[in-house]
Amino acid sequence: MKERVALVDVSARDGFQDEPSFVATADKVGVAAALHAAGVEHVEITSFVHPRWVPQLADADVLVPILPRGPRYSVLTMNVRGVERAVAAFAAGGFKPGSWDAIFVTSASPRHALANNNRTIEETLENFDGVAALAKRQGIALRGALACAFVSPWPQDERVDRDEVVRIVRRFATGGVNGVTLADTVGFADPRTVAQTVAGVRDATGIPQSLHLHDAHGYALANVYAGLEAGVRSFEGALAGLGGCPWAPGAPGNLDLERLNRFLVDCGCETGVDPAKLAVARDRVRAALAVAVPIVREQEAARR
Amino acid sequence: MKERVALVDVSARDGFQDEPSFVATADKVGVAAALHAAGVEHVEITSFVHPRWVPQLADADVLVPILPRGPRYSVLTMNVRGVERAVAAFAAGGFKPGSWDAIFVTSASPRHALANNNRTIEETLENFDGVAALAKRQGIALRGALACAFVSPWPQDERVDRDEVVRIVRRFATGGVNGVTLADTVGFADPRTVAQTVAGVRDATGIPQSLHLHDAHGYALANVYAGLEAGVRSFEGALAGLGGCPWAPGAPGNLDLERLNRFLVDCGCETGVDPAKLAVARDRVRAALAVAVPIVREQEAARR
Repeated sequence: MKERVALVDVSARDGFQDEPSFVATADKVGVAAALHAAGVEHVEITSFVHPRWVPQLADADVLVPILPRGPRYSVLTMNVRGVERAVAAFAAGGFKPGSWDAIFVTSASPRHALANNNRTIEETLENFDGVAALAKRQGIALRGALACAFVSPWPQDERVDRDEVVRIVRRFATGGVNGVTLADTVGFADPRTVAQTVAGVRDATGIPQSLHLHDAHGYALANVYAGLEAGVRSFEGALAGLGGCPWAPGAPGNLDLERLNRFLVDCGCETGVDPAKLAVARDRVRAALAVAVPIVREQEAARR
Repeated sequence: MKERVALVDVSARDGFQDEPSFVATADKVGVAAALHAAGVEHVEITSFVHPRWVPQLADADVLVPILPRGPRYSVLTMNVRGVERAVAAFAAGGFKPGSWDAIFVTSASPRHALANNNRTIEETLENFDGVAALAKRQGIALRGALACAFVSPWPQDERVDRDEVVRIVRRFATGGVNGVTLADTVGFADPRTVAQTVAGVRDATGIPQSLHLHDAHGYALANVYAGLEAGVRSFEGALAGLGGCPWAPGAPGNLDLERLNRFLVDCGCETGVDPAKLAVARDRVRAALAVAVPIVREQEAARR
């Protein structure tokens, strides 16, 4: 009996977000369709954050209503306003509440929380309480995501505290999330740390975990294996190894989704993904990027 | 308490063996000295095989006597004649019996055994019995090495049988080896297979294991982690990621020793190796290769 492991594609969100160009809305729809054709069942498609911060994803409100049916979509949010926009967009597309996931993001690195969310960890968790109440009222499926869950982007200056990670995930659990994503945002994690953190979260909360790994030192597959052996059955990646994090210095691309799929299959897992069609989806991503429109930031525009 | 893990450098043997040039004997001595300075305690320095097959290592008999003191050296052998040559060479250098290791190599892939040793697995094991008797008589320290211990170089055509691997290691144990090296000769192994094979050998024999990994699919570090968690405390690698296997199609370089060291340290292990001095040793290897003399094979020479 092979273990079933889910792949989560984050190309359109974490991938495109870090590009210097805006990928056309129709191309994002095309990527989602290609992922669905390849058998990828979970697609993190966009973020509902202010377009000033992430102009690459400024089309979230118009993209979501026209997404092709098939995958379970998730979208990133950071506050009540973001969830409200997501709810409106999915409703406009005829997606029922509960058929998609609102992901609430915070960070286990105090400094990264400030840089990424402009708030302390505790302030983001107060935001989370409001989001959780809204999700409960409206029957919205909620996930938690924790950036820098293993190592700080500034490992010389700060350590990520495993007890703090467990505390945040407990708070997510209290808020009714259906799962949590632990992210190695900069790709500095080692498999022992991953194994210990995953086991700590598992033993304290029992919540289904997904791992979001980057590959700064080439440790990502070792970290996948550590997670797999600790019971994780969901892993995230991006096509063409796209992505990074604009607020974490030196963050490299996401774990490549095709490498991830091959590795999991070689480890004896079943992903339900067709490698040849996944390659087609990767080419679709590349084609979308090839015709993407360079983004001119406000400051630069003002200077012209 | 950090776990102590041993690094084994195979640059001069597995690395140089696959180069199209002959590295000067004095440069091999220089590499060994640089490895010693970096804190590498185990150096696989050469092979005592017929120079026709491996002209790169044709200087084994003159190299060994002038090796610098410090590391524990090992040399590859495939039969009694090879061990006799090794014994003579180490004796000429004043190395006491038992202070160095004769490694007897066979393969768990029947087809690779024929290609690499020109013998069936059973025929190589009969050779081993003769070598073991000689080693016992003369107080020579003997190690076993098993190529293709996890996956065949021709995975479509043949499977490596875990019971056969255990059987071969048992035969090594009966012959009095002080340890066994399991090699992923082509780098196709996945960490689950590594974990299961290591555990099988451990439970059947209790013999100290060393892992020799190549990195065809980028799985080598995941395989290191799998071995580490299964109790392996010795790992092999080559500087500058050199190496391959001339008789296994598509075999890529060895796991890079510097990456291996960094990974083990990041996993919380202690290797006793100084990374800066290891970089010096890597540069010493590169310098040696830069002035190596192109090898003209007999067939080519005959054509001239």
